[in-house]
Amino acid sequence: VPPPRRAQPADQRSVRSHNLALALSEVAGAVSPVSRADIATATGMTRATASSLVEALLAARMVTELAPRIGPQGGRPATGLTLSGDGPAALGLEVNVDYIAACVLDLTGTVKHREVAELAERDRTPAASAEALGRLAGRATAAAGRADLRVAGAALAVPGLVDADGILRLAPNLDWRDVDIRGLVVRQPALADLPLAVDNEANLAALAELSVAPQDGSFLHVSGEIGIGAGIIVDGALYRGRHGWSGELGHVSVDPSGPECSCGSRGCLEQYAGQDAILRAARRQPARGTSAGGDGALARLVQEAREGDAQVLEALARASVALGVAVSTALNLLDLDHVVLGGIYAPLYPWMAPEVERQIRRRVLSSQWKPPTVRRSALGADAAVVGAARSVLQRVLADPGAYLP
Amino acid sequence: VPPPRRAQPADQRSVRSHNLALALSEVAGAVSPVSRADIATATGMTRATASSLVEALLAARMVTELAPRIGPQGGRPATGLTLSGDGPAALGLEVNVDYIAACVLDLTGTVKHREVAELAERDRTPAASAEALGRLAGRATAAAGRADLRVAGAALAVPGLVDADGILRLAPNLDWRDVDIRGLVVRQPALADLPLAVDNEANLAALAELSVAPQDGSFLHVSGEIGIGAGIIVDGALYRGRHGWSGELGHVSVDPSGPECSCGSRGCLEQYAGQDAILRAARRQPARGTSAGGDGALARLVQEAREGDAQVLEALARASVALGVAVSTALNLLDLDHVVLGGIYAPLYPWMAPEVERQIRRRVLSSQWKPPTVRRSALGADAAVVGAARSVLQRVLADPGAYLP
Repeated sequence: VPPPRRAQPADQRSVRSHNLALALSEVAGAVSPVSRADIATATGMTRATASSLVEALLAARMVTELAPRIGPQGGRPATGLTLSGDGPAALGLEVNVDYIAACVLDLTGTVKHREVAELAERDRTPAASAEALGRLAGRATAAAGRADLRVAGAALAVPGLVDADGILRLAPNLDWRDVDIRGLVVRQPALADLPLAVDNEANLAALAELSVAPQDGSFLHVSGEIGIGAGIIVDGALYRGRHGWSGELGHVSVDPSGPECSCGSRGCLEQYAGQDAILRAARRQPARGTSAGGDGALARLVQEAREGDAQVLEALARASVALGVAVSTALNLLDLDHVVLGGIYAPLYPWMAPEVERQIRRRVLSSQWKPPTVRRSALGADAAVVGAARSVLQRVLADPGAYLP
Repeated sequence: VPPPRRAQPADQRSVRSHNLALALSEVAGAVSPVSRADIATATGMTRATASSLVEALLAARMVTELAPRIGPQGGRPATGLTLSGDGPAALGLEVNVDYIAACVLDLTGTVKHREVAELAERDRTPAASAEALGRLAGRATAAAGRADLRVAGAALAVPGLVDADGILRLAPNLDWRDVDIRGLVVRQPALADLPLAVDNEANLAALAELSVAPQDGSFLHVSGEIGIGAGIIVDGALYRGRHGWSGELGHVSVDPSGPECSCGSRGCLEQYAGQDAILRAARRQPARGTSAGGDGALARLVQEAREGDAQVLEALARASVALGVAVSTALNLLDLDHVVLGGIYAPLYPWMAPEVERQIRRRVLSSQWKPPTVRRSALGADAAVVGAARSVLQRVLADPGAYLP
């Protein structure tokens, strides 16, 4: 029996904040609408306290009350509270090598707005990317307003190592080092006064995948783009490592004397299975501006694979072997039940997954007894930006008192 | 401020068990001897309750009382309680590819007895190993008795994947599969009536290393033997993965088309940096029965390296590159601050560590900003068996009521 989730914080305001979070988490965690009485019972509050908290959450449009309904067996009318779809909202942002993205999620996790924009080569400086992101954020905030949503906070996904102050220490594929990306982005007018968190895109993508498949509690989520990252979920929680820099699958060595990598090393997975590497192997232009799907090089690659183009199939086969070797190494070290192929590997799944599975069965020690399974990401290329917005929702749910209008 | 560690368990007996553990943890966690009054203050118990618990712990010889002393500045006499060095003890056991080991630790963590025995080829069956281990356990228990210690429990370290029932699912270097090693060992007369846990040797070795260097809270402990395993410590806790099968560093791919491995795959680290692989590369007999040190092949290898034997130095250089590549991969995935070289890599440290560090600086993405450091294990080849005994001590400290005489 888990202990009742009560606490005695120090002062009146923190008691109220804590209790608001408790009440909201009862609504968020329930599989069906809950009543004020349910909240009182579950938390040990008085009915009067629970009612007062619910009124505050209703006023903040964090929860909404369903009209009373008669159940199928008759009996007393079922009334109930659920999370609101038109109150506070979360703004997810992403800077990647050749595109930027923004999305708005309501408190229930529904995507209410989404925009992806390719970045021209000349806009791939930190300042220009931040300005372009500011424009996307402006349109996202306006769209949220039209949908009766109020953006309560934002998070930014970046393809590199971030420190605790939101400094992007290293993004090899952008060739950025020690960039105060948080500072550049909060300076944009559309983001003024919004709390902004910055995290690694692969971490956020894994969190997004967890939110859509919470039953798969231990998995490696592989985000294939021009770079390759991975997010590690163990027992339903993100494994961040010591500094949040875990999961750099793209720099796992596939062949120690292989081709040079943008990170300065040799034979990294990215040089075999990143988008540019696949395009090069298929003798296609490593055309940028395409990772986000649409009509670009990735879509053409998928089409040509479907048509059985020999060069493309051979390039995908070679990439799959390398991905399978690196993923097997990760599984030998991390001991996870599943691998989720995301980013460009989601549309390329039919041509890549079988070989990845073959390598796992051959190379992962525990697969002789309990082989990890491979599946396709539910979110694909959207995972990081959706995960960014999800991380904001988690913060709102953890401390709704800080997000009251 | 951490919450006071009080609880209200359901019945009288569990209240007492819980409070015994609280009182004992106050003694174990203190940097200097504590008084009954200190325990009462820290736990919120009455003085009378604290005193009664201390009497029980004294009677069980889990704690001991120091004679009153006058402090250097005079003042009131300092009296105090510490963990006892002659009460309950822990039996650590290890089965490895070519040796078995046993040790006894008292409650303070001091090693009171240690024995390592080489295993002849013919004794490398599960039943014969268990019998040999039973004989070691008998001598260890007798030695404990002579030192006024009472063995309270045992744990066994094994070089393979263990499931929750203590079944050794796979130990490639022993060629054992689905062996009920726990069942075989508890059947030995010396182990009758002793609780026995079974865990992976690399996990236990990492826990042992953590206990001697708790300030290094995030590290990869690499156990080099004939096989190679790793234990992952993050923020002061063991990362076990989904099933306890994490850290299979020996089966990280160094070259996907490299030599065949005992696991069925190709190019695994063990084939470059395991003890037999090093001996083969140095054109020495891959003589077994030597991992535990002494006058065997490992000691000769160290001596020849010291004398500058070219074949040996070249073999160690080749092994170091492979180890550095695999360790770098682990660091890219796990994000840890330190690497601890243990097992055979402890005596071979001077010849291997510089190249491992070089590979890390070249291959670990975050090392461009904050390079992980490499150090030598404090325990070397003893880490796994000491870690096994340590895990028993942890259980005794967590629930002393279950270990009263």
